[in-house]
Amino acid sequence: MFKKICIIGCGLIGSSLARIIKKNNLAEKIVSSNRSDSVNKKVIQLNIVDESNSDTKRMVANSDLIIIATPLSSYEEVILKIKDSLKSGAIITDVGSVKENMLNLVEKNISEKVSWIPSHPIAGTEESGPEAGFAELFQNRWCILTPSKKSKEKDINLLKNFWEKIGSKVDIMSAKQHDYILSITSHIPHLIAYNIVETTLNAQNKTESDIVKYSAGGLRDFTRIAASNPIMWRDIFINNKTNTTKMIDDFIKNLENLKKAIQKEDVKKLEEVFTKTKKIREEIIKAGQDVKKPNFGRK
Amino acid sequence: MFKKICIIGCGLIGSSLARIIKKNNLAEKIVSSNRSDSVNKKVIQLNIVDESNSDTKRMVANSDLIIIATPLSSYEEVILKIKDSLKSGAIITDVGSVKENMLNLVEKNISEKVSWIPSHPIAGTEESGPEAGFAELFQNRWCILTPSKKSKEKDINLLKNFWEKIGSKVDIMSAKQHDYILSITSHIPHLIAYNIVETTLNAQNKTESDIVKYSAGGLRDFTRIAASNPIMWRDIFINNKTNTTKMIDDFIKNLENLKKAIQKEDVKKLEEVFTKTKKIREEIIKAGQDVKKPNFGRK
Repeated sequence: MFKKICIIGCGLIGSSLARIIKKNNLAEKIVSSNRSDSVNKKVIQLNIVDESNSDTKRMVANSDLIIIATPLSSYEEVILKIKDSLKSGAIITDVGSVKENMLNLVEKNISEKVSWIPSHPIAGTEESGPEAGFAELFQNRWCILTPSKKSKEKDINLLKNFWEKIGSKVDIMSAKQHDYILSITSHIPHLIAYNIVETTLNAQNKTESDIVKYSAGGLRDFTRIAASNPIMWRDIFINNKTNTTKMIDDFIKNLENLKKAIQKEDVKKLEEVFTKTKKIREEIIKAGQDVKKPNFGRK
Repeated sequence: MFKKICIIGCGLIGSSLARIIKKNNLAEKIVSSNRSDSVNKKVIQLNIVDESNSDTKRMVANSDLIIIATPLSSYEEVILKIKDSLKSGAIITDVGSVKENMLNLVEKNISEKVSWIPSHPIAGTEESGPEAGFAELFQNRWCILTPSKKSKEKDINLLKNFWEKIGSKVDIMSAKQHDYILSITSHIPHLIAYNIVETTLNAQNKTESDIVKYSAGGLRDFTRIAASNPIMWRDIFINNKTNTTKMIDDFIKNLENLKKAIQKEDVKKLEEVFTKTKKIREEIIKAGQDVKKPNFGRK
């Protein structure tokens, strides 16, 4: 499908991409560039790329598709480094969770001869690093493209086709719309998970042992998300500041309402909210976005 | 172990108990009482009890162990109905998630000749009803006993032994201590899950389809807990009002701090919180309270 693909940053997402690209033969050659030499060694050992080096310019040269898979805070450094080494006609994409800021940052730095088409695969686990990746990560998940002024129509179709060959379903929308929707379905849930675990740790004046012992009562579900990559999530909240802080305010307002209902023993109101929230899970399962088994099938 | 056990309320927990009691031969006879005739029929069809009838007094008669497994709001009605039919020397327990209110309610209504020993197995799924139960539900989970003034020492040991034979590990503490700890590890996580799904539904001005499609970004984890039994949880929050509302205040205070850190782009503070919360999951997995697999092992 492509002659040469270059992945910049082989963490969970980057390394999963490398695996599926190799598995499905989507490139004649696949290379990666990582800041750390131990990661460059590791991805060769794992046999998921053909070549890997910290010299990003060299790795990017002659690539038909370049995928930035670093934390958002590294984008500027990456773009400034590679902008003069990009092949004319190349497609450059990313896998970041916030789009509007990054779209503009890259757009103003690259030439007209390159197609810049941001991607966001809605997939991941709480693990990090090249060893945590796996080829099936994107299977049946959505990938959102948020084209820029530098996205050429035929390249959008080619990239869409690429994600579909990886196993994903593709949606196209504006970066602004993306950042709003994802603040709801992903960013706020992560912030809330971090916050509940933080609140829990503070509340315990003795040891953490009671929290650990009785976590099966509900808390353990949140600790999975609150174990996600700290750098990645720090960057997401800062880059989606407006949507995130607005959603925090809405969340707090609703929580204050639930608190009032508890204080007044307003059984009707509580029952109404708790019944309404039940429905959405059935729809998520029907849409194939979660497993049908109780407790996520945990044994 | 017991001649006759009576379970009042065969929902998820009650029916799981019935199954494991039968499987492990912990009673010569096991009966249940349910308000609804269809549930009484169902548990006979499922072959998990020997007899089942809405006449609770009759079912309770001659039982050595009575287990109340109804929502908390039904306890008063149940106790007033059965208090004069309890066999002298019987043990009465429950499986409720809030202890202090219920301890006092039952204590003042039953005779000295009966041992009242509240239990709380920290186990469950998001499903409800007699068909959702399964014998392994309590395996390797904690069960907390909160003895009352009407708990006889030898009966506490007998009940402890009963839970251990069911597969659980047993802790004994005061009802007050229980309600505090569980507000942290279970009640607040549930309230927060309900609240985030509620906030999400309100935020969507168009349809729910975007929420469903992109829920794999994090939200889907919360929808599992927010699909739990509305009546059961309504009762829990109201009966653990003081702890719950105090924890809501702490939660909001911490969330406001995270919001400020995002607004100020305080990368150090965000990174510090997100790193601290990562640790607890490793401990939960080490303690056998969750699975080690990424994404809870979902495929």
